[in-house]
Amino acid sequence: MFDFEEKRDELLSQIKEMIQRKQYADLRDRLLDLNPADIALLFEEMPETVIPLLFRLLPKELAAEVFVELETDSQENLISGFSSKELEEVLDELYLDDIVDLIEEMPAIVVKRILMHSDPDRRKEINELLQYPEDSAGSIMTTEFIDLKKDMTVEDAFKRIRRTGEDKEIINVCYVTDKSRELIGLVTIRTLLLAEADDIIEDIMDRNVISVGTLEDKEVVAQDFGKYDFMVLPVVDAENRLVGIVTFDDAIDVLEEEATEDIEKMAAITPSDKPYLRTSVVETFKARIPWLLLLMISATFTGMIITGFENALSACLVLNAFIPMLMDTGGNSGSQASATIIRGLSLQEIKFEDIAKIIWKEVRVAVLCGVVLSIANFIKIMLFDRLVLGNTDISLTVAAVICFTLLFTVICAKVVGCSLPLLAKKIGFDPVVMASPFITTIVDALSLLIYFGFASWLLGL
Amino acid sequence: MFDFEEKRDELLSQIKEMIQRKQYADLRDRLLDLNPADIALLFEEMPETVIPLLFRLLPKELAAEVFVELETDSQENLISGFSSKELEEVLDELYLDDIVDLIEEMPAIVVKRILMHSDPDRRKEINELLQYPEDSAGSIMTTEFIDLKKDMTVEDAFKRIRRTGEDKEIINVCYVTDKSRELIGLVTIRTLLLAEADDIIEDIMDRNVISVGTLEDKEVVAQDFGKYDFMVLPVVDAENRLVGIVTFDDAIDVLEEEATEDIEKMAAITPSDKPYLRTSVVETFKARIPWLLLLMISATFTGMIITGFENALSACLVLNAFIPMLMDTGGNSGSQASATIIRGLSLQEIKFEDIAKIIWKEVRVAVLCGVVLSIANFIKIMLFDRLVLGNTDISLTVAAVICFTLLFTVICAKVVGCSLPLLAKKIGFDPVVMASPFITTIVDALSLLIYFGFASWLLGL
Repeated sequence: MFDFEEKRDELLSQIKEMIQRKQYADLRDRLLDLNPADIALLFEEMPETVIPLLFRLLPKELAAEVFVELETDSQENLISGFSSKELEEVLDELYLDDIVDLIEEMPAIVVKRILMHSDPDRRKEINELLQYPEDSAGSIMTTEFIDLKKDMTVEDAFKRIRRTGEDKEIINVCYVTDKSRELIGLVTIRTLLLAEADDIIEDIMDRNVISVGTLEDKEVVAQDFGKYDFMVLPVVDAENRLVGIVTFDDAIDVLEEEATEDIEKMAAITPSDKPYLRTSVVETFKARIPWLLLLMISATFTGMIITGFENALSACLVLNAFIPMLMDTGGNSGSQASATIIRGLSLQEIKFEDIAKIIWKEVRVAVLCGVVLSIANFIKIMLFDRLVLGNTDISLTVAAVICFTLLFTVICAKVVGCSLPLLAKKIGFDPVVMASPFITTIVDALSLLIYFGFASWLLGL
Repeated sequence: MFDFEEKRDELLSQIKEMIQRKQYADLRDRLLDLNPADIALLFEEMPETVIPLLFRLLPKELAAEVFVELETDSQENLISGFSSKELEEVLDELYLDDIVDLIEEMPAIVVKRILMHSDPDRRKEINELLQYPEDSAGSIMTTEFIDLKKDMTVEDAFKRIRRTGEDKEIINVCYVTDKSRELIGLVTIRTLLLAEADDIIEDIMDRNVISVGTLEDKEVVAQDFGKYDFMVLPVVDAENRLVGIVTFDDAIDVLEEEATEDIEKMAAITPSDKPYLRTSVVETFKARIPWLLLLMISATFTGMIITGFENALSACLVLNAFIPMLMDTGGNSGSQASATIIRGLSLQEIKFEDIAKIIWKEVRVAVLCGVVLSIANFIKIMLFDRLVLGNTDISLTVAAVICFTLLFTVICAKVVGCSLPLLAKKIGFDPVVMASPFITTIVDALSLLIYFGFASWLLGL
């Protein structure tokens, strides 16, 4: 069993030594044993000036595989050092969808060079793929699939696979199209292998093909992989003509990206697709400061509410001490509901139409939580704050005010927490942006209003 | 293009009608057009008593595929209605890893029935798989892979695949083992198809196989799929003997589950693997209440701090109004740092060894954020609170206290937010449990102490 992580530091120092001693043949052999993704990780740890040298040691195909795995900065750096011939060689080895990904990340001048060095057919395909909107199925698909015709025999099919398969990303599923390129079925390699050589494709193909449209959201497509356990999904245009395939590895990347994005947005960070340690301080600052500012300004409301009740508070100072607890509990209750709903929306387990069911459920959960929290809090106040700490300002009425506030705050928090993401989704906003920090601000204000409401009423302040 | 979601309601009413009219043949044909995962979704919407009837309409193989996709409750319900023969038929069609998943979810009595109706060889394999710890690679692997020997020809290999491939989950990658079953290489179907019939496996196999140990954390294994774009990963025991494979669909499930778990834990919810709408009110309550209670009790500290400074507060009541803003900003700053680090740890982009680098980075980001927030807050206080709202209690010194507190709170929050998850990971705790709510509680207390510290010092309270 080979564990790359354990050997990373050892490998790094070996490589650095070999470079110093100019043992390039040994170095090449050492790299050949590794997986492209791991080689890319090693390259990233090297000084920028050494990467082109290391890269040129690798055989063409492996070099291209490593290239795809590198970070955007290193790719750009490498390309700008490539001769025209080198660039052509690397581009030749790349899969079409990887070139498109690359072009989307590179500055205009590099894009121009890439397109110039692609052959005209490829350039046409690249341009077609580039026209699909970001985040659409079209933008992550590749046009390199194997298509068969329904009147082929299994033997014909194998011939076609052998002839064209070398350049194709996935040869395990072949699609069957008719004369107008419409998608009519699929056969897996497994079916082909288990069939007789003279079986006709039409007789053994599966007509029940699930496909996605070119404009479908890539996140929805990725979820389909999770749902159906597909290895590859065909992408069709509005006329049901097969235009490309999305492969499971792209789906995994999309799922990981989307989960990271959701987590970042829930924590009030503008998402970035760079790993943390590669993001500069200024970039991290820029991703975080707008939300902090916005949320700080919105906390002005809570400040205004407290100022508005200043007289009540000065008359009963003990109320002050419970504000953080009430606000935090409200905020936590709200985040619980919103996080659950947001994730459910991402996984397509929940739809807007369920809103009544969801609110009704959250209200019942909230009543249960609120009652338990109120009772626990009542006991804590009477036993700990009053008896142990000897805080005699806490009368039974004050305890009642706190406990009633707790109950109603939890209910409000859960209802706000579950309904805001659903409403955001309905009006076409990103539900995650409605997540914890925003909900916290709203719930904070509500909890204070409830608190002072009960205080005015029960304590006559 | 077939979009199941759009047609779901129509399908449901069609099916219900067909059941009422007893048009079972039509119903069967209607179901045959659908994907197993979609059929399962439809079944779940049906009354429980109808599911066995619908299930028996399906051909054996499809029935098994649908069975795997059903929720645990429905599976249990179906099994208890099965005759012994029916149970055996379904079990025969299931892949080994799916049976193991099933057994892990079922109550003991059902497990006994399942094991009783599996043939002895299978029972032995099931028991072996069941012994791997939950969350290990062993627990999600299947033992149904194709193994070749190095001295076979390509033709032999195809014969073996044809003979044994039908029951195997993935036939696109075949592993090569030696006499002691040690893993020595792999060949893909692509390689086999592009090779000559008399090529020897040893000459065309890839010796550079990445494998994982049976006890490896399944999350780490799933991350490897994302990193290396594998379709399947071999699992080996301590002696490097091939014992199973993990397939990409299981990896996708693990990645989705883990992301959901992380999000739930960050929002202070005990993770569950049931979809939200299928979880009962009491279950949801139970997943949420312990954390709410714990966090409520821990907010006692903030209450105690405020009580401790009651005299200072009553002397300068205006300070009160800014407590929520300071606590919220601290909480948000902390969550930003912790969410980033937790996700980085999950994606294996960050290690404990990076802690110094991370803290240094967070301090610099915090200073930038803190300075900007302080300036913005100063302007807001002087222009809005003082001039517009006419709150003359706010002196320049009070504004200074608030702004200094803001700066230092943000710094503390970022340092706590980034270091706690790393420390938790180091001592073997779950870093996510250290996430926002806990960090919020700590940061709340710190921000109050800083606030009252500056207030005492600058205002002489």
